[in-house]
Amino acid sequence: MTPHQPGFSGGMLDRADHLRADEAAIAALRQDPRARVLMLEGFDPLLTPQGGLAWCGVDAVEPDASLILLGLLQGCAHFVVLHEQPNEAPLFRSPRVMGVLSVLGPDDMAIYGAARSLLDWHGRHRFCGRCGGATQVHKAGWGRRCSVCATEHFPRVDPVVIMVAEHAGRALVGRQASWPPGRYSALAGFLEPGETMEEAVARELFEEAGVRATRVRYVTSQPWPFPAQLMLACVAQVQSDVLCIATNELEDAIWVSRDEVRAALAGDKNARFLAPPVYAVAHSLLKHWTTA
Amino acid sequence: MTPHQPGFSGGMLDRADHLRADEAAIAALRQDPRARVLMLEGFDPLLTPQGGLAWCGVDAVEPDASLILLGLLQGCAHFVVLHEQPNEAPLFRSPRVMGVLSVLGPDDMAIYGAARSLLDWHGRHRFCGRCGGATQVHKAGWGRRCSVCATEHFPRVDPVVIMVAEHAGRALVGRQASWPPGRYSALAGFLEPGETMEEAVARELFEEAGVRATRVRYVTSQPWPFPAQLMLACVAQVQSDVLCIATNELEDAIWVSRDEVRAALAGDKNARFLAPPVYAVAHSLLKHWTTA
Repeated sequence: MTPHQPGFSGGMLDRADHLRADEAAIAALRQDPRARVLMLEGFDPLLTPQGGLAWCGVDAVEPDASLILLGLLQGCAHFVVLHEQPNEAPLFRSPRVMGVLSVLGPDDMAIYGAARSLLDWHGRHRFCGRCGGATQVHKAGWGRRCSVCATEHFPRVDPVVIMVAEHAGRALVGRQASWPPGRYSALAGFLEPGETMEEAVARELFEEAGVRATRVRYVTSQPWPFPAQLMLACVAQVQSDVLCIATNELEDAIWVSRDEVRAALAGDKNARFLAPPVYAVAHSLLKHWTTA
Repeated sequence: MTPHQPGFSGGMLDRADHLRADEAAIAALRQDPRARVLMLEGFDPLLTPQGGLAWCGVDAVEPDASLILLGLLQGCAHFVVLHEQPNEAPLFRSPRVMGVLSVLGPDDMAIYGAARSLLDWHGRHRFCGRCGGATQVHKAGWGRRCSVCATEHFPRVDPVVIMVAEHAGRALVGRQASWPPGRYSALAGFLEPGETMEEAVARELFEEAGVRATRVRYVTSQPWPFPAQLMLACVAQVQSDVLCIATNELEDAIWVSRDEVRAALAGDKNARFLAPPVYAVAHSLLKHWTTA
């Protein structure tokens, strides 16, 4: 469905939304000896010797463990354990998890991403934003309900636009000071209330690089699990290649040719820049741009 | 940028993100006699006799009123007042606001939509989801910070996929029991953590109507302010026109031809169904489909 299948997409689990609120069905799935539980260490996945996600049986977890239903595969439930204690750890990318991602297959990456986004969401929604009351998990981990005012809360996803500006056959890529040396990627930013995807692309390009978009074309999307973004990848025609770089956002931004992008994506040591990793949608977007 | 400019898009205010954290700049904008404040009654907009949004000067509001910076127009700040008291009222669409929307011009609708989404977000985030502490507004209304654990919270947008399935030249439209008699529209649902836009479209079509998508094409997007969705409108080719309707979601779903859709969009009294209102992205999507 997409020009280049982005990382964290293509999961094969049936989310079985219709079962989530059915406590008897969830209990039966949990008792099924085929049921599997994702093995994590903190938020990091454990791998089998073959490099796949490691799973254990439900009998390996505490009998009263809170389980999130990730989905079904051939009728067999796949869960992840939800630990309800306060989570003090930073929830962002660790070097360890980034290393694991370069090993996992696409389907496993999608399952891990969904699990991680859900676990993180629970940690950030232990209390009701409306009244401050404690919330409790329900719907097999796909919601929380306030124990005081009964407001329901559902797992959230934040839309982010990510885009290459295009002018006279060249694409704009930028870098943040915190990135590995030489790494350049597509510009990106959170979409705000009251704007379309196309308006957010135009706003971000102007804010970060001072270029005015005249046409925005959607390319592909990706769920990004750090913690839970929907990456909406676009190509934007811009009026001019004159840049005004917002140095609080970007350390640098450069115009690159299709050949320069191809060399970077191929990992060529003489490439003008270091490409984003293959599991990032920016990689898919740049690859698409070289063939468009 | 889009095949048909959807309602609530096309706002002309410069969001001036770079000023939001600059308290001195915000204070100066507030003292500028040209500054304007959106007039609301509850969450409903007040209109001028000409049918535009009504605005007043900053001197018409309490001196210590909390103001959200909606944006700038020709250097002139546009604000809305944030009332921090608990909001017990239902925050959904009222018949009154729906009536107003059919009068407002596109730019005013976009300004009102952004303001409304922000106000609603503040009401739903008065406490920190992580620790339960009270949060306080900051960044000119574009964030809240927990007074206990200092976690920052930002205005949220929920991505929703909305789509027509297409098969053999006909489009699938459905209706919910609560809608006005005869009204049919595109199917829709919230995107979940761990899925792409295209995967969410395929999942929702299968869950609600039992049809399997083979190809998903993005058409346009819209910010929907009840309370804060990003509507991602798509057309999906499906394998078969045999339906299996989830009656907990839909009362009915029917296949309609391009001529039938054209008649509905034109408001023809003999049309097979009543089209969604012109400010809904489903209207834009169906209009696009008749010309695709």
